[in-house]
Parts: sequence; C-alpha cells; structure tokens
Amino acid sequence: MSNTPEDEVILFANEAFYTAFASGDVDAMDKLWAHEHPCACLHPGAPPLMEREEIMMSWQHILADAGVTSIDMHSAKVIASGDVALVVCIEALAGGALVATNGFILEDGQWRMILHQAGPCPDALGPDEDEDDDPQVH
Amino acid sequence: MSNTPEDEVILFANEAFYTAFASGDVDAMDKLWAHEHPCACLHPGAPPLMEREEIMMSWQHILADAGVTSIDMHSAKVIASGDVALVVCIEALAGGALVATNGFILEDGQWRMILHQAGPCPDALGPDEDEDDDPQVH
Repeated sequence: MSNTPEDEVILFANEAFYTAFASGDVDAMDKLWAHEHPCACLHPGAPPLMEREEIMMSWQHILADAGVTSIDMHSAKVIASGDVALVVCIEALAGGALVATNGFILEDGQWRMILHQAGPCPDALGPDEDEDDDPQVH
Repeated sequence: MSNTPEDEVILFANEAFYTAFASGDVDAMDKLWAHEHPCACLHPGAPPLMEREEIMMSWQHILADAGVTSIDMHSAKVIASGDVALVVCIEALAGGALVATNGFILEDGQWRMILHQAGPCPDALGPDEDEDDDPQVH
C-alpha cells in the first residue's frame, strides 16, 4: 500500500524524532512531543513514563549520556493516520536493533509525539536486507 | 485524569484482548483485531508483523503453545481516544512482567485492535504496588 501525502507528513515527523535523538538535541526533542495531550514513553526494559515532565527528564538523561548517536531508522510504516497516527519502524543502533512504535497527534496543525515504545529485536532486518519493496525511509 | 465513558469502552476492548489471550481463544482473538485497517503486532524480541494473516498465525502459535495462561493485566491507561485509541498497560505473566501498548480503531462501531507491542519490564510495579490512585483494571 503506497503512502498518502498525509502519511509522508507523518513519516517526516517520525524522522524529526530520530534526528533529535541522533543529534542529542534536547530542545528539539521537547518541541516535538505533544504539549496539550497525554503522552507515554516506554523505553526498553523500563516501566512506562506517563507524564510529560518525566518523559522529558528521561530524554535529557539519555541524550546527555549518548551525545551524538549513530541511529539508523528504517522500514518506517504508517499504520493509522486519522487524528492519531502510528508509525512502526526499526532502530539500528551500535548496540543492536530495536523495534519501535511512535504515536503522533495533531496539535496546532503539527503532528506531535504522544507515544514512543522501543524494544530489543535481535532479528530485525537491516535496511539492505529488508524484503519489503516499499521505499525505504532513512 | 479520570476516564471518560469512551475511555471505559476502550478499556473494555483492551480487557477483551487479555481475556482472549488468557483463555487461549483463537476465534475471539481473530474477531477483536481490525479487518479493514492496517495492523501491526510487535511480540517481545521479534520483528514487527505487519500483515493481518501473519499476526493471526502468530497468535495461533502462541495460544496453542500456551493454552490457558495466567496473565494479569493491570494499570491500563488510555492516552488517546479520537478515532484511534491507545492503551498502555502492564502484563504480569508467570515468566515476568511486560509493558504493552495496544492500539484500537473504530470499525463498524467497535473498537478493534490495530496494534500490540509488548516488551519485557523487570521493574514494572505489581497491581498492589502501583502508586497511581486511579482505579485498577484487571
């Protein structure tokens, strides 16, 4: 199934999250999470964070520890794009691959993040091995 | 934040998923996943399943292997409830705790599942230890 124009906008918001992550940009990370809606962030192995303030503190810690990180997001697919959008993708990091679901909501005309869940996935295909014939998103 | 009446309907759909899981009911599991919308299922440690048929095959295998399973779902919270709903919850199984995000979409007036992602979470609070004063959902 090919992407709609709105899917492309959502995938752009998803990429913005990984750009903030990879560049260790706490301000960008803060801006792209929703301000007016409930959020949840489920880091690998950790209990769910359900409050914006604790989610932002977690990213401050992660980005401060990681600095500029090599993270290759690929195989992103939009599975819902009503007033809440969901993107499933693979995160390839130096330590291994993760699978992630990112949720977005329209806020002031912008797709802002309301969900991030990532978990380890040793068998995730790399971008070059992906059997799917959809265009790759990097 | 207290639940809206629609949140309660969404939490009921979330509970129906765990009832099907716990009772090993493949037919019920099939019925509660969306038929007309894209779906994604991210089992712990496994690559994402993005097609309904492969998602259902995975559940057939899981439920056939597990039979009737002791699974205590608790601390469920609705974080979005437009035309796509998201629920974050804890799954307490014999082998340990998982954190999960379940996504639902309205299809023929029913909240049907479009997303399940679960990952290990050794530190997830049990229902008796949960510091949140919201009503517990079992």
